[in-house]
Amino acid sequence: MRWRCTLQASDAAAVGTLVADTGFFSPDETLIAIELVEETLTRGKESGYEFLFADDPEGQLLGYTCYGPIPATQSSFDLYWIAVSPQAQRQGMGAKLVRETESLAKQQGATRMFVDTAGRAEYVPTRAFYERMGYHVEASITDFYAPGDAKVIYAKSLA
Amino acid sequence: MRWRCTLQASDAAAVGTLVADTGFFSPDETLIAIELVEETLTRGKESGYEFLFADDPEGQLLGYTCYGPIPATQSSFDLYWIAVSPQAQRQGMGAKLVRETESLAKQQGATRMFVDTAGRAEYVPTRAFYERMGYHVEASITDFYAPGDAKVIYAKSLA
Repeated sequence: MRWRCTLQASDAAAVGTLVADTGFFSPDETLIAIELVEETLTRGKESGYEFLFADDPEGQLLGYTCYGPIPATQSSFDLYWIAVSPQAQRQGMGAKLVRETESLAKQQGATRMFVDTAGRAEYVPTRAFYERMGYHVEASITDFYAPGDAKVIYAKSLA
Repeated sequence: MRWRCTLQASDAAAVGTLVADTGFFSPDETLIAIELVEETLTRGKESGYEFLFADDPEGQLLGYTCYGPIPATQSSFDLYWIAVSPQAQRQGMGAKLVRETESLAKQQGATRMFVDTAGRAEYVPTRAFYERMGYHVEASITDFYAPGDAKVIYAKSLA
């Protein structure tokens, strides 16, 4: 498995396929994931989005994160996106991606990392994952995604 | 005073001047305000940002808001930006802008409006303003903008 931080043109399609293949994200969410790649391919660093890709030896995408500094903050970063392909799941790939992303963010000056999750039942494993990774619930916003569906904001100090 | 919802090319400069003239926003924040206008001039509705401008009879900008649907939510909107020019302040312009923005957002399907503010002292009048406008503190994120500077998220039901 190899880390890669630079985007390539094929990543838009690869990310779309990977995110859809997880079966976890809605078509709208998949489109957002693709848009973040496309915007960064077009605008470069100015987009504010950083990417970390985990490729297998044949260059197949195993997982990725999208993260970056939160505009107008001194040193807060957001983990905007993380996804692991179904064939690479249950092998600690998510944890490796989060740890490597935190390490890269720290090198870029991050002191805190934030992650948005949802309150609904299908996010129970996601929230448990972030808790294992040292994140805590920083705030909760009721009825955010939809009536009855809260946004749960996790945070972790990187200092 | 006239409302205007369509962007014109001169708005990037006019918004930059207005936001800087308030003396309230940092240079970084002013750049973000300009970028939101430029991105919407380039990408149109696809940017996800809507604008409401209040022009005086000579077409001078008195104040504006930038708002829009929050991606991946069913009907949550964010008031991303509001600014009133110094010569139009203390005349209820901020309240008019918020009410008109809420009304436009409702027409577009909004059921909840969110506004981010900061916890530091200079935001005491801002937070009092949103409380007068019917907003309540929905969540607070410590050390968000900088160590010791929280993000305070206000919300209002538009249903």
